[in-house]
Amino acid sequence: MSDFIQPRILKGFRDFLPDSEIVRANLTENLTAAFRWRGFVPIDTPALEYSEILLRKSDGETEKQVFRFADNGGRDVALRFDLTVPFARFVAEHKDELYFPFKRYHIAKVWRGEKPQAGRYREFVQCDFDLVGSESAAADFEILALIKIALEEIGVPPVTIRVNHRGVFNGFLSRLELGSKSEEVLRTIDKLAKIGRDETSALLMDITGSSEKAGAILDYAAGAGSYDASLDLMKEMAGASDVAVSGIVRLRELRAMMEAAGIADAFVLDPSITRGLDYYTGLVYETFLNDLPAIGSVCSGGRYDNLAGLYLKERIPGVGASIGLDRLIAALEQLALLPAKSGYLEAEIFCLDAALAAHYQKIAAALREQRVACEVFPDAKKIGQQYTVAEKKGVPFGVLVSPEEAAHHTLTLKNLLTREQFQGISVEKAVEIIRQSRQMH
Amino acid sequence: MSDFIQPRILKGFRDFLPDSEIVRANLTENLTAAFRWRGFVPIDTPALEYSEILLRKSDGETEKQVFRFADNGGRDVALRFDLTVPFARFVAEHKDELYFPFKRYHIAKVWRGEKPQAGRYREFVQCDFDLVGSESAAADFEILALIKIALEEIGVPPVTIRVNHRGVFNGFLSRLELGSKSEEVLRTIDKLAKIGRDETSALLMDITGSSEKAGAILDYAAGAGSYDASLDLMKEMAGASDVAVSGIVRLRELRAMMEAAGIADAFVLDPSITRGLDYYTGLVYETFLNDLPAIGSVCSGGRYDNLAGLYLKERIPGVGASIGLDRLIAALEQLALLPAKSGYLEAEIFCLDAALAAHYQKIAAALREQRVACEVFPDAKKIGQQYTVAEKKGVPFGVLVSPEEAAHHTLTLKNLLTREQFQGISVEKAVEIIRQSRQMH
Repeated sequence: MSDFIQPRILKGFRDFLPDSEIVRANLTENLTAAFRWRGFVPIDTPALEYSEILLRKSDGETEKQVFRFADNGGRDVALRFDLTVPFARFVAEHKDELYFPFKRYHIAKVWRGEKPQAGRYREFVQCDFDLVGSESAAADFEILALIKIALEEIGVPPVTIRVNHRGVFNGFLSRLELGSKSEEVLRTIDKLAKIGRDETSALLMDITGSSEKAGAILDYAAGAGSYDASLDLMKEMAGASDVAVSGIVRLRELRAMMEAAGIADAFVLDPSITRGLDYYTGLVYETFLNDLPAIGSVCSGGRYDNLAGLYLKERIPGVGASIGLDRLIAALEQLALLPAKSGYLEAEIFCLDAALAAHYQKIAAALREQRVACEVFPDAKKIGQQYTVAEKKGVPFGVLVSPEEAAHHTLTLKNLLTREQFQGISVEKAVEIIRQSRQMH
Repeated sequence: MSDFIQPRILKGFRDFLPDSEIVRANLTENLTAAFRWRGFVPIDTPALEYSEILLRKSDGETEKQVFRFADNGGRDVALRFDLTVPFARFVAEHKDELYFPFKRYHIAKVWRGEKPQAGRYREFVQCDFDLVGSESAAADFEILALIKIALEEIGVPPVTIRVNHRGVFNGFLSRLELGSKSEEVLRTIDKLAKIGRDETSALLMDITGSSEKAGAILDYAAGAGSYDASLDLMKEMAGASDVAVSGIVRLRELRAMMEAAGIADAFVLDPSITRGLDYYTGLVYETFLNDLPAIGSVCSGGRYDNLAGLYLKERIPGVGASIGLDRLIAALEQLALLPAKSGYLEAEIFCLDAALAAHYQKIAAALREQRVACEVFPDAKKIGQQYTVAEKKGVPFGVLVSPEEAAHHTLTLKNLLTREQFQGISVEKAVEIIRQSRQMH
């Protein structure tokens, strides 16, 4: 026994067995279709890059989490921890080969050495989509509308997308003479939903040194209900600085587009949404399932001023979002909305007699010719065992052929759910029955 | 300038821009469909595993090529260098949750620190499919037939699949009293096509110490033309040992299945195919494009005795193959068979006037309602620039709306290829024209 190795994987990493991988594949494929359908194109970048590229702008927290090492050539390399930094490098490197506005999606694995805990993994799939090279409201709207549509198209129940504008918030903070502390305030407000009003208030008083200012910030963040009323409140409180005014105009333009596209109901203007990350400069948003808001945002993002600033003089503005696939799948599971286990096959050709192996292949070829997805069970195991495998794979029909039937070019078709049997029929008849059953589903 | 980082990637790694990523995505999706259609299911495993797991059975060559390091917790970890070793670990670890015969496919990245050279990369995608838990000829045939069908379904021109049986070859070598040198001989014969008969002969004489034996091996490897004639030759030369006889029976059973399924023309029995790797024990095969055999095998594999022997007492036999996607894409490119550049969109709604931004979204929503894939150009750039982007994205139709047309709820539809224009038409009429054009393609 001592010669055997215990088969095991690293903590925080996961195997995906077929049932869960099929769920993940279905979601990814449907998302991909939604992206393409609106003109987003796929790209790919290496999993491993120079640490200098990935970590230059990162804070200490990110650096601690990264899988970083010296490769065999002594190069300082790291596994990507998100898809944004590689995208910035990609755009800078290939800017002359791309066309702008450039709309890309990228669904791929990233790695972070986080402390493994419920819902946190060291390897997970990110699903990012961005539009770079345009500062227009239409670009912002493109991403907002895509969030709504893409989630709808992959079968997610109704969501609310909470939008805000950091420029307006910054204008408001400048007016309170808190411009130098805006980062701190925005990070604090970002926690409001999690830690509650009282604790937030205490933190804000620490930062601002004024209960009046802390109160004003909380009033601002509370909004005023409807999109239009909140917009009025923000306008009034934020004052007439350029950044505030242009943010208000932007939020109004977006509202008009939401209405024109008939999707305004899905959006809420929520001045408490700030997204802690410092690289957002304009619009920010988070997305919540109406039936399960507590699970947190399933798709978040915002507008950034300059994607590739580390690499280029040229300024490339953009707007984007990221879908949290793991969280989304967990939510759908909790809501019992994951599709029932389903396989890809319509018929299993059981092996009653190994001597008929070539005959079974002939039947399989004939069924496939008629576009019936099928497989041949390869061994003459007990029929009960063969049924069990077909059931686990979710195959609706079984084909049974005895030596007598083989001699007469007939077969028995069995509906594995209802146990209904059709004996002594032709391949053509079997195809007909399978096709009829398709239409009923 | 000194503050900028040069955007660059590691040698041997690649970015995929949309045009090439779309090609790769299409191939992968079509392969996936072919796999599913025959009952193969997807799985996934971590990119990073314990080095102990990945490297236990590897030779020094593999070990030198692997990206291996100590993670932040001091664990000795490595990036997977193939999909076979992780699959073995996966099957051993989850054997009680799986059903056998188990048919999986796995299309994912692997990493090897090889010396970068033409066609060799340090990060590349492997595409593996295996059937484990059956020793039957039907299982072997399942993989052989899938190679033929899967390649056909992704648009690869006709291929020849060269099959051989290592058991028969070993029986033959035992008869020559070369049993102890069989590995060396098989590795040498594996190079025959590359280094030619003379050099192979010299090597075989070194190994066997006998020009007679070297000559016999070369005669064996040369085969006899047709499948049946080669089978007779092998039978005669390999003698009556168990392993030789059962191999001959297997090759004959497979031939019957190929004929029953109507795909026998694609297969050649080639006694010179050995696959250098020592873990194959029975059937082995390589696949060549009839129009470009020199590019080498695009899909290879074989039968192995015991997939999970490092982890389990239980023997799990299997058979599988791997498609070389990079080589396949290179071949299709050389044969000018890659599909012409094509995008995902049917219509680009150009931005003639930023004040109409909401109106453009309304038209986009109406077109999408009718299942027309479209996007709104987000900025009122010069129309020539907008045309260029639409052309690069391969969009066939443009929608132009002036303020007057917006007021009259009409639009101009422009065929971007023929330059034909339809002025002052309704959205419904535009949908009708776009649909007609679909049917022509």
